[in-house]
Amino acid sequence: MNLIQATIITIGDELLIGQVIDTNSAFIAQALFKIGIPVNSRIAVGDNKKDIINALDTASQKSKIIILTGGLGPTADDITKPLLNEYFGGKMVVHQPSLDHITYIFETIHKRPMIERNRKQAEVPDVCEVLFNEKGTAPGMLFKKEGVYYFSLPGVPHEMRWLTENQVIPVIQKSFTTNFIAHKTLLTAGIGESFLAEHIAHFEKALPANIKLAYLPNIGMVRLRLTGSGQDEKVLAKEVNAQFEALKEAVKEYLVTDADETMEIVVANLLKQRKQTVSTAESCTGGYIGHLLSKNAGSSQFYTGGIISYDNRIKTEFLDVPTEILLTVGAVSKEAVEQMALAVRKKMNTDYAISVSGIMGPSGQTDEKPLGMVWVGVASKEKVVSKVFYLRFDRLRNIEVTANQAINLLRLLIINKI
Amino acid sequence: MNLIQATIITIGDELLIGQVIDTNSAFIAQALFKIGIPVNSRIAVGDNKKDIINALDTASQKSKIIILTGGLGPTADDITKPLLNEYFGGKMVVHQPSLDHITYIFETIHKRPMIERNRKQAEVPDVCEVLFNEKGTAPGMLFKKEGVYYFSLPGVPHEMRWLTENQVIPVIQKSFTTNFIAHKTLLTAGIGESFLAEHIAHFEKALPANIKLAYLPNIGMVRLRLTGSGQDEKVLAKEVNAQFEALKEAVKEYLVTDADETMEIVVANLLKQRKQTVSTAESCTGGYIGHLLSKNAGSSQFYTGGIISYDNRIKTEFLDVPTEILLTVGAVSKEAVEQMALAVRKKMNTDYAISVSGIMGPSGQTDEKPLGMVWVGVASKEKVVSKVFYLRFDRLRNIEVTANQAINLLRLLIINKI
Repeated sequence: MNLIQATIITIGDELLIGQVIDTNSAFIAQALFKIGIPVNSRIAVGDNKKDIINALDTASQKSKIIILTGGLGPTADDITKPLLNEYFGGKMVVHQPSLDHITYIFETIHKRPMIERNRKQAEVPDVCEVLFNEKGTAPGMLFKKEGVYYFSLPGVPHEMRWLTENQVIPVIQKSFTTNFIAHKTLLTAGIGESFLAEHIAHFEKALPANIKLAYLPNIGMVRLRLTGSGQDEKVLAKEVNAQFEALKEAVKEYLVTDADETMEIVVANLLKQRKQTVSTAESCTGGYIGHLLSKNAGSSQFYTGGIISYDNRIKTEFLDVPTEILLTVGAVSKEAVEQMALAVRKKMNTDYAISVSGIMGPSGQTDEKPLGMVWVGVASKEKVVSKVFYLRFDRLRNIEVTANQAINLLRLLIINKI
Repeated sequence: MNLIQATIITIGDELLIGQVIDTNSAFIAQALFKIGIPVNSRIAVGDNKKDIINALDTASQKSKIIILTGGLGPTADDITKPLLNEYFGGKMVVHQPSLDHITYIFETIHKRPMIERNRKQAEVPDVCEVLFNEKGTAPGMLFKKEGVYYFSLPGVPHEMRWLTENQVIPVIQKSFTTNFIAHKTLLTAGIGESFLAEHIAHFEKALPANIKLAYLPNIGMVRLRLTGSGQDEKVLAKEVNAQFEALKEAVKEYLVTDADETMEIVVANLLKQRKQTVSTAESCTGGYIGHLLSKNAGSSQFYTGGIISYDNRIKTEFLDVPTEILLTVGAVSKEAVEQMALAVRKKMNTDYAISVSGIMGPSGQTDEKPLGMVWVGVASKEKVVSKVFYLRFDRLRNIEVTANQAINLLRLLIINKI
């Protein structure tokens, strides 16, 4: 069977000098993967006619679906639209629904007069089908040539996302039949990648040829993904499910979740099911744990609030950490984090609390306390538990790993594993 | 002049199904840009022999420098090393310094026995130069063929970063002479991309051919970048500096900083220069402002701490927001954020305070208060100022934009612009 494949082309000089990180490709790849379209490659090129045309030519040799993002803005460095117009031999015409929408955005939302530059965004090549962009001023476009579908989307992430979900994916599903893909993901914590690989080597060796195992290590945890492909949807689902059950059994002592979700979502769900709440007392993570707990919808059901006790004075005044502890064992200590967790839980009247205090770098270490040393505490009505970690990343990653380890420690407390 | 160019190839199925976001390419592109090596394209391919070889063949046609990341781990889906061994016709040999280092990492740092899988990581093709990896277990490799340099690096971000800075860049600087590149970046706030473009159209039109202007819109702000290239370093620097001064003058009423730095760094520097401090009272951003203020080194000099008052009860109990305000105008109001800012500043005894309260979505709106409505407050010893914003993004982006607008409002207060 000849598989329909896709190529993603992202356009923009800023991608080639590394001034922005490309999150669009990952989003599009995920959306295509879910409907069984494999992406064979992703190509990033500059705002440069020759390179964009080269990328289009190369991509069309192996892909029936080509998705371009970027270069549709109102400024002079945005060359994608005139280039596609020329490439597909069209001429520019005004697309009235887009012009109405742009006018609406400026007059009703921005409450600013529209300028010629904005009006130009409603012009499209007459050889494309317009993909109406509800979220912004640059219309999406679909060109078809010799059986290949070329989708051009703006690079602004929330516009690109809306267009992908509401315009691109429905068109692809209507126009192409594909092989079925099934994937199942689980998350482990507490074991490194190579030990995990050793631990499940027997499982991996016994996998059938149409099912692949991937290791995705991240922030102190390892995600495992099974991906299967086949021509019969039901048979495939059964095969993948059976292997996934075997994998879950093989990693059961490290298993955090058998869904493709983050640690903070796992803990959020545990708390919501139990109708319980949590508060935070953060020193070295400076609010990042609060952010992780509150960044998903519905977090007000379980996250009450927190104290960011960045300065030691705040630890004493708001969390009753005795000056004596700070002067003897110091702020990065079992005693300090346990007191912080107990105090914030009591003061905010929550079921649980999380606390952290550590040395995130690049300086601040002492003879006894190395860079990357961090104490994490969790408290419930019944007990307080703390754990020390020695991290060896840069500051930002140390903050991320600490926050994830702290939330994992809360998970273990909630399910009575510590 | 024939410019030396580079191509970045990232390897991993996870990149093509969108399970991880590729931050490595941006880092490498930035490092190359700084030494005047233009990246002509970035290609992401799966853990698939044919596609990797295709990418190598294509890249070597136009680039003298090819940087690969990924596929060097200890598990079965990591195929880059044997593939390169075959591609360059080598045979595998043990690299003793790497083996010693891996042994050290396991015995001294992890305090766990080393397994065969780990030992294998010290094996390298005999046709490469090993790039010693101080930060991890997978050695970097350099292959040379027909004047093209192929660097292979692990995909783990902090290892890749260390190897790029300490091994790859020095080798490139020693081996190639390049055109000079100069770039200058500034950050604006308070004006949209298209209005800014209109505002500086005269400047853009008058730019010489060797200097380009790029617009990088992000979270309610627009970054402008001038990039020039030339063969005489001094002449180029002078040209770019002169244009940059003209650009600064043209955007002066919107200028946040004339350095390539974030809003939070600008505010951090203002506070450090003045030896002043700030505290935060966050509702809808749940700790994200605290995170932005504390994520960079040296933040303990100016960031004292904060209250995350996610639940309204915390606003009353910790920030003295009267129940009456909550019952009448509500938590998302001028009155609430001003009280929050005043209270946290006083209680934490800081020079300034930031407060926010809003409806981040996807639900929680009322007839009077739409989704995306957010009040931001800032206070000093002398005054309190607040401002309302109506955002129209998704939850996470609303949080990011709110945090940046709040930090910008503090900046305006510090420099007496509000």
